[in-house]
Amino acid sequence: MNETLVTVVGNVATTPVFRELASGPVSRFRLAVTSRYYDAVQKVWADGHTNFFTVWARRSLGTNVQASLTIGEPVVVQGRLKVRDEERGGQHWTSADIDATTVGHDLSRGTAAFRRVLKANPALTDPASAREAEPEPVG
Amino acid sequence: MNETLVTVVGNVATTPVFRELASGPVSRFRLAVTSRYYDAVQKVWADGHTNFFTVWARRSLGTNVQASLTIGEPVVVQGRLKVRDEERGGQHWTSADIDATTVGHDLSRGTAAFRRVLKANPALTDPASAREAEPEPVG
Amino acid sequence: MNETLVTVVGNVATTPVFRELASGPVSRFRLAVTSRYYDAVQKVWADGHTNFFTVWARRSLGTNVQASLTIGEPVVVQGRLKVRDEERGGQHWTSADIDATTVGHDLSRGTAAFRRVLKANPALTDPASAREAEPEPVG
Amino acid sequence: MNETLVTVVGNVATTPVFRELASGPVSRFRLAVTSRYYDAVQKVWADGHTNFFTVWARRSLGTNVQASLTIGEPVVVQGRLKVRDEERGGQHWTSADIDATTVGHDLSRGTAAFRRVLKANPALTDPASAREAEPEPVG
Repeated sequence: MNETLVTVVGNVATTPVFRELASGPVSRFRLAVTSRYYDAVQKVWADGHTNFFTVWARRSLGTNVQASLTIGEPVVVQGRLKVRDEERGGQHWTSADIDATTVGHDLSRGTAAFRRVLKANPALTDPASAREAEPEPVG
Repeated sequence: MNETLVTVVGNVATTPVFRELASGPVSRFRLAVTSRYYDAVQKVWADGHTNFFTVWARRSLGTNVQASLTIGEPVVVQGRLKVRDEERGGQHWTSADIDATTVGHDLSRGTAAFRRVLKANPALTDPASAREAEPEPVG
Repeated sequence: MNETLVTVVGNVATTPVFRELASGPVSRFRLAVTSRYYDAVQKVWADGHTNFFTVWARRSLGTNVQASLTIGEPVVVQGRLKVRDEERGGQHWTSADIDATTVGHDLSRGTAAFRRVLKANPALTDPASAREAEPEPVG
Repeated sequence: MNETLVTVVGNVATTPVFRELASGPVSRFRLAVTSRYYDAVQKVWADGHTNFFTVWARRSLGTNVQASLTIGEPVVVQGRLKVRDEERGGQHWTSADIDATTVGHDLSRGTAAFRRVLKANPALTDPASAREAEPEPVG
């Protein structure tokens, strides 16, 4: 409840890194989300501000993200936003993570061939792992 | 302004139908979005209500959707919701359409191989077809 | 999971109707959400399509909505969208409901004086009533 | 285009600060958004992670926010998320801002009395200040 759900459309900015954790597989990557605006003076579209997020994909989604995404590809990501403020060595430090519920290639930029993975998705059967899972600390 | 943006995760329920219109290519399909809930008595996840939407994909997105999606595939769709009420022959009739801004395969259910389409995207260069203006700079 | 969350900004189109159900208090009203667009030819902003929703507010939210909202007031509503298709007497009939998680006056249109209600919110303590509650049938 | 829209429900964490800028009035405040989760072991709802945002309300919304919000009040905020990374004195520094499109009191926590402000809203008449263009008609 009161979670901050976001849907963002952007580009994979770092090669996804895969790890097998006690809680299951996880893949993470940086995502660059650049807004576009129409410059009424120049009469052209131009890039606006870029938001960067660290996306965490877990369990089946993590395995499939690792098998599917390459740096530079355009994607749509939906998930829970976590903004973290930390003090480290007296320094204020913040990160913006998205704990992804889904990731897909952005078909406005190209085509994709899909192959269903048939093994059971633990997220659908294990209530303890679904919906409220806390992301592991960033390693 | 005041548009109803939605992001939905569901399954392609009808084979996408493609047409070339004066305004460009368009592909449309029905999408079934079934909520899942945890049945605390049976201690299992179960299907809840299913929302059906007619998804409209236009221009590059329409062409790529037509080339990429097959009935039954799991997808994530972001777009503007339009609920339409009509009177036809004295009958009240309503539909729920989504004018898609992006569509992608849901990687929590499988893997996807992406191929970028290199031709220019009219949506990025033609202001008449674009969706959003830029907010003013923060003072 | 896979719920269709929406946030809409519009106007209260019917006087909220309050009922005490076995599951608790509920207030419902019609909401009109009119998109605005810039007419580049006339160089003015104009009304676009209007979405109508039936908003359901339950428990504390229902009680407070009933005490706070008047027809015509501008509001922001967040909740779960339910599109219903029905056959009645051979007729296809559809409605678009929002099971609200929150409702508030839209402060871009005016000011509001808030008074906190101190009694416990069952939604925060009773898991069975939270998050996945099915709306009662429309009476 | 490609903006990161969010809707968050939380509490006003700092007294709103008002300024008159060349671009118009602006009010800003910190917002605390605490997720809630059901602890299946303790069988109680508990607080999860808290996201902090700096909310910016501009023009009419800024004026009305300043006149309406008090520290501690529960609100719903919709707007564009901006995550900013900066280097200052060799330090990495990030903030998470929301450029609000609307703000309202959360009626699940209390009641509110609304008073419409009748003066023209520049956002509705000045195209330079507006956020979104209209999609093309459906073909």
